[in-house]
Amino acid sequence: MNVLIVHAHPESQSFSAALARQAQQTLEQQGHRVQVSDLYAMQWNPVASAADFSARENPDYLVYALEQRQGVKNHSLAADIQQELDKLLWADLLILNFPVFWFSVPAMLKGWIDRVLVSGICYGGKRFYDQGGLRGKKALLSLTLGGREHMFGEGAIHGPLEDMLRPLLRGTLAYVGLEVLQPFVAWHVPYIDDQARQVFLQDYQARLRRLEDEPALQFPRLAQFDEALYPLPASD
Amino acid sequence: MNVLIVHAHPESQSFSAALARQAQQTLEQQGHRVQVSDLYAMQWNPVASAADFSARENPDYLVYALEQRQGVKNHSLAADIQQELDKLLWADLLILNFPVFWFSVPAMLKGWIDRVLVSGICYGGKRFYDQGGLRGKKALLSLTLGGREHMFGEGAIHGPLEDMLRPLLRGTLAYVGLEVLQPFVAWHVPYIDDQARQVFLQDYQARLRRLEDEPALQFPRLAQFDEALYPLPASD
Repeated sequence: MNVLIVHAHPESQSFSAALARQAQQTLEQQGHRVQVSDLYAMQWNPVASAADFSARENPDYLVYALEQRQGVKNHSLAADIQQELDKLLWADLLILNFPVFWFSVPAMLKGWIDRVLVSGICYGGKRFYDQGGLRGKKALLSLTLGGREHMFGEGAIHGPLEDMLRPLLRGTLAYVGLEVLQPFVAWHVPYIDDQARQVFLQDYQARLRRLEDEPALQFPRLAQFDEALYPLPASD
Repeated sequence: MNVLIVHAHPESQSFSAALARQAQQTLEQQGHRVQVSDLYAMQWNPVASAADFSARENPDYLVYALEQRQGVKNHSLAADIQQELDKLLWADLLILNFPVFWFSVPAMLKGWIDRVLVSGICYGGKRFYDQGGLRGKKALLSLTLGGREHMFGEGAIHGPLEDMLRPLLRGTLAYVGLEVLQPFVAWHVPYIDDQARQVFLQDYQARLRRLEDEPALQFPRLAQFDEALYPLPASD
């Protein structure tokens, strides 16, 4: 497999960075090829703007997704976007590696999603969910959390973690056609000792070694909806 | 009321910007005081980093929330953060006004959330959800969407919109103690004509005029959980 790890943490010595390194090492030992985009180290620009297009379909009024589609056709996407897009298209597995900020990704990583998952390639028209432009590839979230495991789940104070992660798991990764694996979660990270962190690293290593056998999470399929995207009656 | 509108759209002539202006005008006409943070116009920096603190509790290892708590105590938060925090604390109502990017806020606005909702003031320890640091204030999302209304809801292709917005509604706004109102949603915006947009502006105006009478959405209360945040048996 070709693997792209997109990592975003403001502290280079963080445990999140250790997880990214663990993934790189383990997957390379398995014979896979790995590229890492360390967004803080790259000083990635997370802000979607008109400057992302060297030529514009409509120079007077920016519709970002429309300019993405033109940018793909005319090869006029900004160089930093094109570079990340090339890595993404090369990859068979995308790992987003980050600390949870506000039950979501840090702005740095949100800006990678906003700018790199371009309309015209990753999605567009009826190409989303199981018909998304990145179908055939896999995706994994690898995240660190301040909260404890018992604070998530049915009836727990924050509810199920997958519900909090829905815009990422379903609204982003599954939307562009990726097969989404169960997230890898390291709980309570700022408060645990080095030994507990080593256990998470070992657990992650064990998961990465058999990642190719894991079943993907289930999401909607376009065949369940009509042309106008109204639900069709369920068939057994 | 004092009202803070935080607006983030890369096109200054966007319909999202028209919604922000509508809110400002309507609320001012009602006698409220309004400040607008137009993040793109301000060239807001969305990236949480060590540079956000002029003095550090631990200069060798960045734990962002910990430095936020120290920054609050020592008045060592970066000037751009302090300025937004002052507006937030001044406000009785916070409106986040944005186009939905990937079922969430644009990175620009995510970075306002990451950097301005500081630990030590907005939350910290047992001060979250109904005990959050911003309790007594209200919050409203005002958003534009490409999708149509029938694509959201139980059984619809994207599921309920509130489920996609959960990390914002519950995980962010309710988490810091804000009373969260039903989002205002303008559907299918890139594809509708000016007349349909006028209808959304009028609907928004009508809602804004009676906003103070609206009931808030319901979220967990800390009294439903024990000291370790395990759920207590429900009492009737």
